[in-house]
Formats: sequence, structure tokens, C-alpha cells
Amino acid sequence: MSLQQKAHEKKFETGLREFIETAPGIFLPGVSIDTVIFSFHSDTLKVLLLRFGHTPYFSLPGGFIKKEENLDDAALRILQERTGLENIYLEQFYTAGNTIRSRDSIIHDTLKKFTGGLPSNNWLEQRFISVCYYALVDETKVAPQTEPFVTEFKWVDVNKIPKLLYDHKLIITKARTRLQADLDEKLIGFNLMNETFTMAELQSLYEAVYQKKFVRTNFQRKMLSLNVLDRLDKQYNGKAHKAPYLYRFVKSK
Amino acid sequence: MSLQQKAHEKKFETGLREFIETAPGIFLPGVSIDTVIFSFHSDTLKVLLLRFGHTPYFSLPGGFIKKEENLDDAALRILQERTGLENIYLEQFYTAGNTIRSRDSIIHDTLKKFTGGLPSNNWLEQRFISVCYYALVDETKVAPQTEPFVTEFKWVDVNKIPKLLYDHKLIITKARTRLQADLDEKLIGFNLMNETFTMAELQSLYEAVYQKKFVRTNFQRKMLSLNVLDRLDKQYNGKAHKAPYLYRFVKSK
Repeated sequence: MSLQQKAHEKKFETGLREFIETAPGIFLPGVSIDTVIFSFHSDTLKVLLLRFGHTPYFSLPGGFIKKEENLDDAALRILQERTGLENIYLEQFYTAGNTIRSRDSIIHDTLKKFTGGLPSNNWLEQRFISVCYYALVDETKVAPQTEPFVTEFKWVDVNKIPKLLYDHKLIITKARTRLQADLDEKLIGFNLMNETFTMAELQSLYEAVYQKKFVRTNFQRKMLSLNVLDRLDKQYNGKAHKAPYLYRFVKSK
Repeated sequence: MSLQQKAHEKKFETGLREFIETAPGIFLPGVSIDTVIFSFHSDTLKVLLLRFGHTPYFSLPGGFIKKEENLDDAALRILQERTGLENIYLEQFYTAGNTIRSRDSIIHDTLKKFTGGLPSNNWLEQRFISVCYYALVDETKVAPQTEPFVTEFKWVDVNKIPKLLYDHKLIITKARTRLQADLDEKLIGFNLMNETFTMAELQSLYEAVYQKKFVRTNFQRKMLSLNVLDRLDKQYNGKAHKAPYLYRFVKSK
């Protein structure tokens, strides 16, 4: 182990011990927040994962609620602190509360390994009920940042999610189901597409979310029936008669 | 005040004091559950409300989560304990977590009045984040029962909800919005209609939930397109040619 890595791990341990001591005075007990941040890029639906400190393990961006903080405000703050993402429209979709979800032996073993043993029943090892939020963003427009407990972030294909800490893989599955059910309604709010886009680009998004192909003509008919799209006039540019129509979202639904 | 009423109020006070003392050893801190139980009867969408002890105030059926109990199991237990309703299909739909929601002066004044003053920061007056569930039942098939903290229950027209404790009126509004969004998908799960029903009966349910009229032919087309209905053969009974078709839900979707 290099000196630099040793210093990093020492900092991680010190940070953990400090957090466990101060957390009870700052946060509500027993309730956490997890966020599922989807991106859609290169026709692929992805999820933002964070590496937990200097462990080999990844998890969703998450955190805790301050004693005098509204739940939704806490979700936005946590996302900002963990990833640098700001002004994201987060949608609450599920609250995970099985007793087994906090009994993750990897977490316990990791905490033990990195700290040489923590007080039993410490803050991080209590039972948590987690309120889950999701969002859909354009990954090219955001720049997640690392912080002491997060040493790496990555966007992972939603079909290739590795084993994650806690029940976070299940939470991603639930988020995706909700995204499918909500996509029509959320198209504008998520502000996901470019200012203007083709019907084929929109269809790619749907196909990535639903993980299946749609028939072009049916898809176009369905989208137009939602009454959320403005079709732009074609600009004459010498070969415009071959270019596809461009659309944008109507300003207010 | 009659002797009987006085005895009731004394019992309520004793129960409250006992609850506040024992609750921290039994339940998770800071998390509660509220349930919105809709019924559909006589073409009216209603919600089940409970009177809080011997106060004039009503609230949703709610309670707390035991330390070793799964969240969904707690919701079912609470509903059973508060109302006698069993084997209800509950759907989690929202978690309420604004700081202001637990600062209900009516609750504080009522607790003070009935007990002559409780320890500050007692169990009932802490901040709660509440996980909310809803269900849709046939009120004629269920028989809610009272218990010490619940002295009355009633089904109230969803358009005529009185002022309720905490943010329960807002929670009902959120539940109704979710019910509207989910109704197509939940029709079978909620097991709401009789075994067989006419298209007009089904339309009444939709009109009560959405609080608007539908055109009969459009409604029928939409319902048939869901592929959840079996149309029964008409039975010959002498005047059957005038009777409407009966439908039932397909066994598995």
C-alpha cells in the first residue's frame, strides 16, 4: 500500500469515526434518502453509482435528513453534496423499509476493516428506512464530483448493474418501473432532451427506458396524441426536404 | 359530563400516558404510517376517517412501526388494529416529510387538555416522517371496529372531507391523484367490484374517482382495450335481450 493510499484510508477512517459521533446530533434517526439518477446518452439508459470510500463497493448517492429539514430539501442537498448535481428535478417514488435491508454484512465487515471496530449500534449500523427519489438527466450536462466518502462515480448501463451495497439494486429496479409508468407525463419536467429533437431521438429514449422496440408509425401517433410536442417549420437549407422534422416541448402543458 | 364519559376520558388519558412511556421501547422513532382507505358505494367515493379518542377531531388510520417489523407488514397490522380491516391490498404511494407536518397545535392542545400536561418531547410530539398507503375497498364488505384511541369511524365523501389532524387532508389529495393514475392497472388487484358487473357500474366507479363524466361509447372502448374484462354470455330469461352484458375480470392478466 502506498503512503498516499494509506493517508487516504486514514482520512476515511477518521471521517467515519467523526461522522458516527456527530450524526446523532444533526440528523433524524433511522431514516435515510437514496437517489436513482438516470441518464440517457448514446441510446443507453444509465444510473449514477458512487464508490463507498476506499472500498471496492458501489452504492446509490444517499444520505440523511437534518432535524429541521424538509424531506424533499434533504434529497436535493444530499444529491448536491455527494455528486455536485444541482437544480435537479427529483421525484419521490418509493420508501424501502424491510428489516433485512440494513443488515448488509459487506457494510459491517468494511466498517470493521477500515476502522478496527466501531461501537456496536453505531449510527451507520442502525436500521434505516430509506425514502427513494429518482431523476433523469443528461449526463453530458452534469459533472459529479467526489468528496471524502465518495472516491469515484460512474454511469453504469441499467442492464449491467453490479452487486451494490444494501438493497440498492432492488431500488434501481423499482425506479425503472416507475420511470416507465411516468415517462409520458414527465417528459417536459425532466428537461432531458435537447431544445429541439427528432421523433427518432425521442423514440430512442423510450426504447431505452422500456427496453423494447416500438413501431415508428405507432410511436409517432402516440407521442403526438400526448399534446406536449410543437413541430417546428422546416428551414430551407438546400437539402432540407430530406431532413426529418424537428420538435420541441410546448412551453406549458 | 356523565360518569360514563368521565370514565372513558380517564381511560383515554391513562392509555396515552402508558403509550408514551412504552412506545420508545417498541417502535422505531420518528417514522409513522398513515392509510387512506377509499370505498366506492352508491356511486360515491369515500374515505375512512377515525375520531381521535374523545376529541372532536378526525384523522386517517395510522400508527407506528415495530423495531423488527417490515414496513409493509406494519401498515397491514396498523390497519387491522385500528379498524378491524384484514387482508386488504395496500399500496404505498407517498412519504410525507415536511417539518411543519408534526407541528399541529390541535394535537398539542388536545394532549395537554386530556392529560394535564405531558413530558416535553414526548413520543407523540416528536417529528414524524409518515409513509402513506392507500387501498380501495367495498365498505359493505368490511366492518371497522373501535379501540381505545379510536372512538368512532366514518366513511366520508372524498369531496366533503372536514379539517383533519396533521396534514391528513393533503395526504388524501395525494392518494386520490395516485388512484386516478393507477386505476386501470389496479382494477383487478383491488377486487373492488362484485364478481360480475355491467359496463355502466364500472363507469360509475371511474366517474367517482376522476370526478367527471365520461362518454359511454368512449369509456367502453377504453375499458375493452385494457384486456382485463371477460364478457359473459347472456342468459336467456325471457327478457334477456334488453339486459346489459355482464363482465368479470379475467383470472390472470
